[in-house]
Amino acid sequence: MTSEQLAGLLAEVADGRLTPEAALERLRHLPFERLDFATIDHHRALRQGRPEVVYCAGKSIEHTVAICERLAAATGGFLGTRASDAQADALRARFPALRWHPVARVAHLAASDAPGPSGDAVLVISAGTSDLPVAEEAAIVAEAFGHVVERLTDVGVAGLHRILAAGDQLDRAKVIIVIAGMDGALPSVVGGLVRAPVIAVPTSVGYGASFGGLAALLTMLNSCASGVTVVNIDNGFGAAVAASRILSR
Amino acid sequence: MTSEQLAGLLAEVADGRLTPEAALERLRHLPFERLDFATIDHHRALRQGRPEVVYCAGKSIEHTVAICERLAAATGGFLGTRASDAQADALRARFPALRWHPVARVAHLAASDAPGPSGDAVLVISAGTSDLPVAEEAAIVAEAFGHVVERLTDVGVAGLHRILAAGDQLDRAKVIIVIAGMDGALPSVVGGLVRAPVIAVPTSVGYGASFGGLAALLTMLNSCASGVTVVNIDNGFGAAVAASRILSR
Amino acid sequence: MTSEQLAGLLAEVADGRLTPEAALERLRHLPFERLDFATIDHHRALRQGRPEVVYCAGKSIEHTVAICERLAAATGGFLGTRASDAQADALRARFPALRWHPVARVAHLAASDAPGPSGDAVLVISAGTSDLPVAEEAAIVAEAFGHVVERLTDVGVAGLHRILAAGDQLDRAKVIIVIAGMDGALPSVVGGLVRAPVIAVPTSVGYGASFGGLAALLTMLNSCASGVTVVNIDNGFGAAVAASRILSR
Amino acid sequence: MTSEQLAGLLAEVADGRLTPEAALERLRHLPFERLDFATIDHHRALRQGRPEVVYCAGKSIEHTVAICERLAAATGGFLGTRASDAQADALRARFPALRWHPVARVAHLAASDAPGPSGDAVLVISAGTSDLPVAEEAAIVAEAFGHVVERLTDVGVAGLHRILAAGDQLDRAKVIIVIAGMDGALPSVVGGLVRAPVIAVPTSVGYGASFGGLAALLTMLNSCASGVTVVNIDNGFGAAVAASRILSR
Amino acid sequence: MTSEQLAGLLAEVADGRLTPEAALERLRHLPFERLDFATIDHHRALRQGRPEVVYCAGKSIEHTVAICERLAAATGGFLGTRASDAQADALRARFPALRWHPVARVAHLAASDAPGPSGDAVLVISAGTSDLPVAEEAAIVAEAFGHVVERLTDVGVAGLHRILAAGDQLDRAKVIIVIAGMDGALPSVVGGLVRAPVIAVPTSVGYGASFGGLAALLTMLNSCASGVTVVNIDNGFGAAVAASRILSR
Amino acid sequence: MTSEQLAGLLAEVADGRLTPEAALERLRHLPFERLDFATIDHHRALRQGRPEVVYCAGKSIEHTVAICERLAAATGGFLGTRASDAQADALRARFPALRWHPVARVAHLAASDAPGPSGDAVLVISAGTSDLPVAEEAAIVAEAFGHVVERLTDVGVAGLHRILAAGDQLDRAKVIIVIAGMDGALPSVVGGLVRAPVIAVPTSVGYGASFGGLAALLTMLNSCASGVTVVNIDNGFGAAVAASRILSR
Amino acid sequence: MTSEQLAGLLAEVADGRLTPEAALERLRHLPFERLDFATIDHHRALRQGRPEVVYCAGKSIEHTVAICERLAAATGGFLGTRASDAQADALRARFPALRWHPVARVAHLAASDAPGPSGDAVLVISAGTSDLPVAEEAAIVAEAFGHVVERLTDVGVAGLHRILAAGDQLDRAKVIIVIAGMDGALPSVVGGLVRAPVIAVPTSVGYGASFGGLAALLTMLNSCASGVTVVNIDNGFGAAVAASRILSR
Amino acid sequence: MTSEQLAGLLAEVADGRLTPEAALERLRHLPFERLDFATIDHHRALRQGRPEVVYCAGKSIEHTVAICERLAAATGGFLGTRASDAQADALRARFPALRWHPVARVAHLAASDAPGPSGDAVLVISAGTSDLPVAEEAAIVAEAFGHVVERLTDVGVAGLHRILAAGDQLDRAKVIIVIAGMDGALPSVVGGLVRAPVIAVPTSVGYGASFGGLAALLTMLNSCASGVTVVNIDNGFGAAVAASRILSR
Repeated sequence: MTSEQLAGLLAEVADGRLTPEAALERLRHLPFERLDFATIDHHRALRQGRPEVVYCAGKSIEHTVAICERLAAATGGFLGTRASDAQADALRARFPALRWHPVARVAHLAASDAPGPSGDAVLVISAGTSDLPVAEEAAIVAEAFGHVVERLTDVGVAGLHRILAAGDQLDRAKVIIVIAGMDGALPSVVGGLVRAPVIAVPTSVGYGASFGGLAALLTMLNSCASGVTVVNIDNGFGAAVAASRILSR
Repeated sequence: MTSEQLAGLLAEVADGRLTPEAALERLRHLPFERLDFATIDHHRALRQGRPEVVYCAGKSIEHTVAICERLAAATGGFLGTRASDAQADALRARFPALRWHPVARVAHLAASDAPGPSGDAVLVISAGTSDLPVAEEAAIVAEAFGHVVERLTDVGVAGLHRILAAGDQLDRAKVIIVIAGMDGALPSVVGGLVRAPVIAVPTSVGYGASFGGLAALLTMLNSCASGVTVVNIDNGFGAAVAASRILSR
Repeated sequence: MTSEQLAGLLAEVADGRLTPEAALERLRHLPFERLDFATIDHHRALRQGRPEVVYCAGKSIEHTVAICERLAAATGGFLGTRASDAQADALRARFPALRWHPVARVAHLAASDAPGPSGDAVLVISAGTSDLPVAEEAAIVAEAFGHVVERLTDVGVAGLHRILAAGDQLDRAKVIIVIAGMDGALPSVVGGLVRAPVIAVPTSVGYGASFGGLAALLTMLNSCASGVTVVNIDNGFGAAVAASRILSR
Repeated sequence: MTSEQLAGLLAEVADGRLTPEAALERLRHLPFERLDFATIDHHRALRQGRPEVVYCAGKSIEHTVAICERLAAATGGFLGTRASDAQADALRARFPALRWHPVARVAHLAASDAPGPSGDAVLVISAGTSDLPVAEEAAIVAEAFGHVVERLTDVGVAGLHRILAAGDQLDRAKVIIVIAGMDGALPSVVGGLVRAPVIAVPTSVGYGASFGGLAALLTMLNSCASGVTVVNIDNGFGAAVAASRILSR
Repeated sequence: MTSEQLAGLLAEVADGRLTPEAALERLRHLPFERLDFATIDHHRALRQGRPEVVYCAGKSIEHTVAICERLAAATGGFLGTRASDAQADALRARFPALRWHPVARVAHLAASDAPGPSGDAVLVISAGTSDLPVAEEAAIVAEAFGHVVERLTDVGVAGLHRILAAGDQLDRAKVIIVIAGMDGALPSVVGGLVRAPVIAVPTSVGYGASFGGLAALLTMLNSCASGVTVVNIDNGFGAAVAASRILSR
Repeated sequence: MTSEQLAGLLAEVADGRLTPEAALERLRHLPFERLDFATIDHHRALRQGRPEVVYCAGKSIEHTVAICERLAAATGGFLGTRASDAQADALRARFPALRWHPVARVAHLAASDAPGPSGDAVLVISAGTSDLPVAEEAAIVAEAFGHVVERLTDVGVAGLHRILAAGDQLDRAKVIIVIAGMDGALPSVVGGLVRAPVIAVPTSVGYGASFGGLAALLTMLNSCASGVTVVNIDNGFGAAVAASRILSR
Repeated sequence: MTSEQLAGLLAEVADGRLTPEAALERLRHLPFERLDFATIDHHRALRQGRPEVVYCAGKSIEHTVAICERLAAATGGFLGTRASDAQADALRARFPALRWHPVARVAHLAASDAPGPSGDAVLVISAGTSDLPVAEEAAIVAEAFGHVVERLTDVGVAGLHRILAAGDQLDRAKVIIVIAGMDGALPSVVGGLVRAPVIAVPTSVGYGASFGGLAALLTMLNSCASGVTVVNIDNGFGAAVAASRILSR
Repeated sequence: MTSEQLAGLLAEVADGRLTPEAALERLRHLPFERLDFATIDHHRALRQGRPEVVYCAGKSIEHTVAICERLAAATGGFLGTRASDAQADALRARFPALRWHPVARVAHLAASDAPGPSGDAVLVISAGTSDLPVAEEAAIVAEAFGHVVERLTDVGVAGLHRILAAGDQLDRAKVIIVIAGMDGALPSVVGGLVRAPVIAVPTSVGYGASFGGLAALLTMLNSCASGVTVVNIDNGFGAAVAASRILSR
C-alpha cells in the first residue's frame, strides 16, 4: 500500500464515504490470501512487477498444486522452480497448457494475455556443460518474465579463445549472467571485458575442495574485476530476477 | 580491441597503408604501461567507461604515488580506495587538488574536465551507524563515477518503522545499495519492498558468531527476497561499480 | 533429590525409622531404570515438570518400543520425536491410543489423566511453507506439554505486510517461537516488534550457501533485535521446551 | 503504532478533529529522530518496555556522545555497552552522574525517576574467572533494566560439586543465564537440574580449537538438556535482554 | 627391526655365518607381504603387540577376504572393523568360527591360542542409546585385544544423577573411554571426577549444528577437565587401541 | 594462435593472397566446435600437447556420447574420466575398441596411431588399499598420455618400513605422485626422501574429522617437506596431467 | 565424597554422634573456597592426585596473585600456566621461591615437601624448533607433577633419519608426547613405531592453510597409526596431565 | 643412506675391515647435528640437492644466528626465509657478505663456490602489485638455488590483454609459478595457455570473503585448467623448491 493510497483512504474517511471501522478493515486486509499452509502474496506483482514464483523443493504435491491453483486463479498463470518430476506431472495433469523444462526443473503456465519476450536481451553464459541446469533455470525464468535471452555455452577460461571469440556478443549485451562451477573464474574474465552489469552464479559442479560450490562462490565474491555481483550457489532463478530488476529499471 | 578495429587494421594492411610488421607491433602494444612493480591498464576507461581505480591497501607509499602519477598523467585524475592516512598525506602533498574522505578511506583527484553528477540517483542505505565507512566508500565512489547519490542511514530491521517511513524514497530509487552487518537482514526487507535492482553489501560489523561478516554475507546470499545480488564483505567500492554498470547500461 | 528431601531422609535415620543401610540404598537408587541399552530417567518429571521425551532418530524399532513401554508403565504416556514411519507403525500397533503427527514426525501417547491445554498461548510463526515440519514439531510438543498454541504460517520478510498485518496477535503473545530457513531474517523483524520472549529456530530449508541451515543460524545469533535467543537448526522440539520453561516459570 | 492507536487516529479524522493531511503527517512522523549519522529510535521504550541501548564498539567518540545526549534528552538516561576507556571518559565528562563498569565495559546513566531493582531475580552463573567480563555485562544490564541479580561464579563442570552445592539457589531461580567458554558444558548440566528458563552464553575464553568461542557455541546449541536457548558469543547484553523479556512477560 | 636384531645380524656377517648379500636381502625383506592391492604388515604384532586390523570400509569383498586370509594364515586370526553386512557374510562363509558383532560392525576371528580377557578393566561409558554402535566398537575391539571390559550406558549429563550414581565404578576404573554425541559434555564431567586416563570419543549423533560430530569433537578438545584426550569422531576402534596401549604399558 | 601464425596471416593479407574479409573470418573461426550443449576445444592438443579429456560426471549419456564422437572424429580417440557404469556401457556400445577401467572410472579410446608408453616413468604411490580408485585414475591417465607408470601400493606411514624398503624405486623416479587419505602424511615422508618432483593427491578416504578429504588436503598443503605440490581431493586425473606437464617439459 | 564416606557419615547420624543438621551442613560444605571472583577447588588434589593449576591467561594480576595465595596457603605450592611477564613478575615478588620458565610461560612454586621426579619417564618429542614453547610447557608441567622427563627436539618427518636414529629411546618410553605444527605428521610416524601410549599435541606453528593449527589437529585426529590420542592445539599442559593420568594409573 | 652405501658397509664388515660395533656406530650416527634446540640436517644437500633452509618465523634471534652459523660452517652458506628486520640485522652483523631482500624477507649467504644461475628459466607471474612479497620470495629462492628467473608482474585476469600480450614469454617458459590473491583466477588462465608445469601460489591479499587467502586457494585447487598444482597460501618458498625439483629432474 503506497503513501498515495493511504492518503486516498484517509480522505474517504474524512469525507464520510468510509467509516473508520471499514477503513481499519481495509488496512488490515492487505491483498494476500491465507491458506492453512501458506500465505500467498497476490500483491507482489503490483509491488514488484513480477509474479510470485513457487519454490517447489520440499513442498508436498498437494500443497504445490493448491498454491499454483490460487495463483492461476488470481493472475492467470504461475512459475514453479526446483520442481520434481512428480510435482511436474501433477501440475501438467491439472494445467494442460503448462510448459515443463526438465533440465531447468521449471514449470511455467503463462497467463493467456502475457506478452512475448521483448526489450534488451539477457546474455546467459555458462562455463561448462555440467552447468547447464543452472543456466537453463536462469534462461527459462528470464523468458517467463518477458525478456529476450541469448545463450553462450561451455566457454570456460581453460580454453580462453572460446570466450574471446564472442567479443561482439559480449559488447552488445545489456545484462550478463555468468554461470560457473569448479574454480568459478569465468565472471572475473567476463567482468574485465565488458561494461554491462555482470551477475555471477556459482554452481555446485565439481568435487573435493569445491565443497558444493563454496570454492566458486568465494572466487566470485573476490573477483578482481570490480562490480561483479553474486547470487547463491546454483541460484539461476535469483540471477534471472536480478537481471529483470535491471532491465525493468 | 573490438572486432571493428581489427577489421580496420586488416584493411589498412591490405591497402598497404600499414606494413605487416607495424600491424603486428600495434596488435602487440595494447594500451597498457609496464612499471617495474605494476602494469597499468590505461585501456580500461575505453573498455569499461570507468577509470582504473587504485586499491591502496598493502601497497607502499612510493608505489601508490607512482601509480597515481601515471594515471593522472594519462587521464587527468584517479581514485584511490582503502588508503591509509600516510598514503593520503603523500598523495595530498603531490596533488594539492586531491579530495580526501577519511571515513570512506577514499582519495579522489577529479579530472579537470570531469562532468558533475547527473542522471538517475543511487540510493545508499545502511543498517547501522557502524556501517558508515562502507556506506561512504560506496557513496563517494559512485559520486566520483558521475552519479547522483542519496543516503538513508541507520534504518536496520530491529526498528522497522524507520525503513517503512522511507517508502517514497524507496519507490523512486533506480538502483539501491543496502549495507548491513550483524544479521544482514536489511536487504531482504528492502528487496521485498522495491522493484529496483538491490545490491547487498555485508559488513564486518559485529562480533562472535558474525565471524568477520560471514553471517551477514550468508544471510544476503540466502535472501528470501529474490533477485538481491551480493558483493564481498565491506566492499562498498564494488557495490558502487555494480550500480554504475547498471546506470550506464 | 532436593535439599529438603535429603534433610527428611537424614531425620528418618536419626529417628531410627530408617537404617543407615536402607538410607544408603535409597540414596543410591535414585529413580532411574537401567535397561541393557538405556537408562530411563523417571525422575525428570519430578525435577523439571515435563516428561522424558524419546528422541527416536537412530534408535532401533525394538529399543524405541521398549523404552516407550517403560515410560508408559511409569507415567501413563510418552512423547516420541523424530520418529520414522516404521517406528510410528510399531508404536501404533502397541499403543492403539497413540496420536501420530506425520508432518511433525511426533508420536504422542497422552496419559489418561493429562489435563487439556491451558494458560498463556505459545505463538508459533513460520517464514515459509517448507518450514512447516519444524513449526509443527514445536506446536505439537508444546500442546503435548499442556500449552495453548497459536500458529502464523508463511509470513516471511520478503512480503513484509503479511507479518505486519498480524500486529494484534504479536502484541498479545506471551512467548513467540519464530521459525525460518534461508536468510533467517524473520526473528530480527519480530524481535523488533514485540516485547515478549522470542525463541528463534533456524531450519535447514534452502540450498547452496544456506549450508544446511548454518546461514539462518548465524543470522539469528547476530540478530540486531536484542534479546532473541536461538536453538539448534530444525530443533522445533527444543523451542517448545524453552517456551514451556518460560510459561511454567 | 498499535492497532488501537491507528483506530483512534482514524476516529479523530472521522470526527473532523484531525485533517487527513495532519493524520498522514502523524503516520509518517513516527517517533524517531534522524541525525546525520544515526536514526534514534525513541519509540522503542514504548514498543518494547526497555530503552534503546547504544552499542559503542566502532563508533567515534563524537558520535557516541551525540547519540547519548539525544537519548538522555528524550528519556533522562541511557545505557552504553562495549564502550572503550576513551568513550567512557568522554561520557563521564559530559554526564557526571554516569556509572562506569570497567569489567563489563558498560556505561549507565540512570534516569532520575528510574525505580530500583525489583521482582524475580536473574541468576547469572559463570563457569570460570575468565568469563567474568561477559557475566558482568549480563548482570549490569539486567540491573539497569530494573531486575534483581544474583551471581554464582567459577563453578565449571570440572569440579562438579561446586555447582551441585548451589542446589537451593538453582531451585529458587526464575531465569538463569549460564556463561561458559572452552567446552561450554555448564548449561547442559544446569539445564538438566532446573525447570526454569536457561539462557546460555558462549564466551571466547579458550585457545586453539575453541576457535574464538565457536566450540562453546556449538556445544550449547547441541545441549542434551532440552530447552536451553543460546545467544551470540560473548553476548552478555543479549542474555540480559532475553531474561528481561521473560521476567516482563 | 630393533637395534639388537641389527647388531645380531652384523655379528653373523662378521662371523661369516651370513654373506653380505644374504644380509642385504634380509634387511630388504622386512616382514611384510605385498599383494597386488595391499601391503600386509605381519610385523606389527611384533612391533606393537597387537595384530593388524582390517579397516573394511570402502574395500571390495574380494580384497577384504583375501587380506583376511593372509592374516589368518600368518597369525591364526584377524579383526575387521566397519564391515558391511555383505563383507561379514563373505567372511563368515570363509571362516565358520568368525564372530560377527552387527551393532559394532566388527568381525573377529580369534586365534585358537588367544588367551581370554584378563588384567585391568576398560570402562566404556556412553552418553546416549544412539551412541551404542561406537561404544560397542570400542568394547568389542578391547575384548579382542584381551582386555576385560565394563559398560555404563546412557548416562548423559542432562540427568546427572545417573553418572553420579556410578561413583564406585568410576573410582575403580584404570582406563575410561567416554563416548558422547550432541554436546559432547560427558567427558568433561567424568574427567573431573576421576584420576584415571580418560579417552573421549565424539560421535556423529545429533543433527543441525552438530555438523556430523564436529560440535562434540570441539567440546572434547576444549574440555575444562584437564588431561582428557580425544580421538576421531565415531572412532571407537582408536579409543580401544589407545586404552590397550595404556594397559599394555 | 601463436604470434608466428598471426605474423604469417598478416603477411598473406599484405601479399594479397588473402582478403581482409577471409583473414577476419579465419581469426574468428578458431579451432573449436560449437554444439548446442558444449564447445569442444580441438585446439588443445596443438596448444598443450594433450587431447581434451571429457569429465563425464553430471553429463547425460547422450551428451557424453555426442562429445566423444566429435573428439573421436577429430583426433581418433578420447579419454573420459569419472564415468558411470551406464556411460561406460553406452560408450562401449558405440566404440567397440574402447578400454574401460572400472576401478579408475576411466574410459579410453586410443587413437590408432598413438605410440606406446615411453620415456621416464611416473611413480604412483598410494598409502592404503582404499586409495586405489584415485591411484588408478592417475596411473591410467598417465599411461593414456603415453607415459610409463610404476605403482607402489599400501605403503602408509603407520608401517614405515614398507616405504623405506622401496628406497631404490624412490631414488630412480623422475616424477612421483603420492596419494593418501586420512592423515595425508605420506607425501611429507616421501618428499623428505627424494629429490624428484612430488605431486600430492589427498583422497576422501576416512570418516569423521577427515571431512571428506579436507584433513589430508590441509596436511599436504602444510607439508614440512618443502616443494611438495598438491591437487584437489581425489583428483588423480589432475596429478597425471601435472606429471605429464613435467615429463613433457 | 565417596560412597564409603557417605556410609560413614550416615552411620554417625544413626549413632547419634552427629545431628541431622550437622550432617546436612557437612554434605553442603564440600571442600572448596569461594572468593568474589573465583571458586577454588582444594578438593581436587584429593580427588585426582594433582594440585589445581591456575590458567593465568585473561586473568588480572590481582586475581592471579590472590588465587595463588590461597592455593599456596592450602597446599604449600601452585602451578600457573600461560602466565604473562607481568603476572610472573608479580608472583615472583610475592613468592621469592617461585621458578619461572619463560619459554613455557609456566610459573611453579613447589611445596616444600614435594618429592623429586621419579618413576617412569615421559618422552616429549617435538617436530621443529618453533614448537619448543609447547614442548616445554608439557615438559615443565610433567616435572612439576613429579615425573621424570626426556626430550627429543626438532625431529620432524621431512628428515626421517633423525627420528629413526632415536629407536632405543622410543622403545624404552612408557608414555610419549609428540608435538608438531604445520602438517602434524610426526605422531603418525611415532605411533607406528612404538607400542606405548602416544599423546599428540598440534601446535599453531605454520601459516596460511595451517589455519592456526587446525591442519595439524585434523592430521592427528585422522592418524593412520591407530590409538594415537589428541589434545587441543598448543595444549602442552593437557598432554602433561594426560601423561600423568597414565603414569599414576 | 642409499642401498649401495649399505651394501658397501656390509662388505667392509664381511672383510673384517670394519668391526660390527663400528658399523653399528656408523649406522647410528647419520649426518645430522644435534643442538639443544634444533637438529640440523646436514645430510639434506646430499639427499635432495638443495641446502637446508631456515624458516626464521617464530625463532629467537639467538637460535636463528646459531643455526645459521652451523649451516655456514658445514656448507659455506645458508638461506633464511620469513626473517624479521631484527633477525636480518643480527645475521648481517654476523655475516657481512649476507644479502638481505626486504620485500621477500629472505636472507641469503651464498657459499663462496656457488655457481651462478644457469639452465632453464623459472617464470614467476604475479596477478597484482600487492602479491609482490610472495612473488619475490619465490624468485629470490629460485635464484639462490641456481636457477635463472624471469618476472611478469601485475597481469591479473581483469585486464586480460596484459597476460595475452606475454604469449611468447609463456610459450618459452619451462616452469611457471603463478601467484595471485583475491579470486585466484590467474593460474586457470595461464594453465589453459601453456603446456609447461604450472605451480599456483595463493596469497592472502584481499579482505572479507578472501578469508586470508582461502578463496584463492580453493580456486586454484579447483582450477578448470587441468594439471595445475598448488602450494600453501603465501608459500613462495615452496613454489621455488617445487620448480627446482622439476628443473633438477
